[in-house]
Amino acid sequence: MLLVVGSVALDSVETPFGARDDALGGSATYFSAAASLLAPVHVVGVIGDDFPLAELDFLRRRGVHLDGLERVSGRTFRWRGRYGYDLNAAQTLDTQLNVFEHFEPRLDARALAAERVFLGNIDPELQLRVLEQVQRPRLVCADTMNYWISSKREQLLKLLPRIDVLMVNDAEARQLAGESNVMKAAAAIEKMGARSVCIKRGEYGALLVSGSEAFFAPAFPLATVVDPTGAGDSFAGGFLGLLDRMSGSDLAALRQAVVMGCTIASFTVEAFSLDRLRDLTLAEVRARFEAFRTPTDHEALHASIP
Amino acid sequence: MLLVVGSVALDSVETPFGARDDALGGSATYFSAAASLLAPVHVVGVIGDDFPLAELDFLRRRGVHLDGLERVSGRTFRWRGRYGYDLNAAQTLDTQLNVFEHFEPRLDARALAAERVFLGNIDPELQLRVLEQVQRPRLVCADTMNYWISSKREQLLKLLPRIDVLMVNDAEARQLAGESNVMKAAAAIEKMGARSVCIKRGEYGALLVSGSEAFFAPAFPLATVVDPTGAGDSFAGGFLGLLDRMSGSDLAALRQAVVMGCTIASFTVEAFSLDRLRDLTLAEVRARFEAFRTPTDHEALHASIP
Repeated sequence: MLLVVGSVALDSVETPFGARDDALGGSATYFSAAASLLAPVHVVGVIGDDFPLAELDFLRRRGVHLDGLERVSGRTFRWRGRYGYDLNAAQTLDTQLNVFEHFEPRLDARALAAERVFLGNIDPELQLRVLEQVQRPRLVCADTMNYWISSKREQLLKLLPRIDVLMVNDAEARQLAGESNVMKAAAAIEKMGARSVCIKRGEYGALLVSGSEAFFAPAFPLATVVDPTGAGDSFAGGFLGLLDRMSGSDLAALRQAVVMGCTIASFTVEAFSLDRLRDLTLAEVRARFEAFRTPTDHEALHASIP
Repeated sequence: MLLVVGSVALDSVETPFGARDDALGGSATYFSAAASLLAPVHVVGVIGDDFPLAELDFLRRRGVHLDGLERVSGRTFRWRGRYGYDLNAAQTLDTQLNVFEHFEPRLDARALAAERVFLGNIDPELQLRVLEQVQRPRLVCADTMNYWISSKREQLLKLLPRIDVLMVNDAEARQLAGESNVMKAAAAIEKMGARSVCIKRGEYGALLVSGSEAFFAPAFPLATVVDPTGAGDSFAGGFLGLLDRMSGSDLAALRQAVVMGCTIASFTVEAFSLDRLRDLTLAEVRARFEAFRTPTDHEALHASIP
């Protein structure tokens, strides 16, 4: 069973292809929607009394446990952002923590027994406090961002030795390691304690570095990209969802999980908010996972250089 | 036999890792140094009487034919550029065409019989004039840039139907097609007449789009990147060099050629100017080409999603 701690939010997003106000968002939401196609998910988070609960019905139907999602009085976490034609870079226009400001994650008996954990992009202190409660996690992934890397570095460094896969983008890896070369940055982060580093590169795919091994998966080639919000969290959902489904954690399993992460993230970005994930089926996911063969079929090539 | 037309230049480059003044550079130079490890190359270009000819001795020793490299009175083409820590983006500080300004490519009998042609990044009018002279080319690749796309669009559109593989970066593909999505841009460029489009993405590798097929190769994971100048032209050299060596032009051969392009380009960027290419051996190239297996081994992964 998977445990995710993160935000359940209302996002207002503008891209060259349209705009949405107060649409369903948040790291725990995207993660759950993706992962629940593959494995059971337990959510820990907080929403305000303004949150439209019916929006989460599709997650419940998919077997996501929402008992750990507290509802308190106040306004739900809100994020407002804008993307230009370079969909790799979001410009944050406004962040309102609201009920998230005093969020104190509480884990029930079910959550404490989780085998695989995703620590969404929240205060590393909270991430650590959650992790300390989980009894015997087999695999822990964490996300973080520039804000925590600079303002809560010490806490982040305490967290890293307990992390199996740190999931960050190029810039975050560079900032955390103080090293411009991404391969050297990944090696430095491993020295800080993380077992592996997964570098998310938006439209360029993802790179997994584990010891001396590097593995690349491109983003699935898409002719329609509408809103990249949530791609990273969906990636994490596909990644951990597959590992939970396969009960795997060796390097071969991690590689397969990277491809699954890219697969599900490629659906996320085809529509605003969670619109594409809402009705996504495992059959569709399988088909696209299979379709990854063609653009990444390097194996047959290496037979013979005359 | 390969024919390349392009610049043989003196570059002054500054990166976070050092600087060089009036070092050997130019698209035809990088291309030849890369391609000649795999196949015979004939260069068409022009240098001034200030050019240090001994700098090209290593190319001659590698079997590069330089009879088509005219030496005229005047100064050699010079480029001055700077890279920040984001080595994907060069800032051009100065371009002096010098003897290149009145360059009129002349092809001798040997050049006219070339089977594979690389039209380096020069005025599309010149590219077309060279191509019209080649008797029966089996495969033609061309590079171009933002300047030509905006100032010589009409001539470029005349060239495209004669091109097998257009090699451009993301931004150039978008500009040429007037389309922000790279997959749609590639499809649009194919409609303009190019048979395939190869999109060079610096540290993110390369993407080959040919009809409905897409193929990705990552950049080889490097812990040392010193100077990205010439990576694209070395890529083209590895790409066409392998195709010439294998006499191949089907999709499987093109894919293998993309990996070879990435392989040789990965050596280029490890040092300033052509320093790393100068003594590079085919054995080293083979070894790194083989080492590409690990980070791109997707094939074994697709066996079974439970």
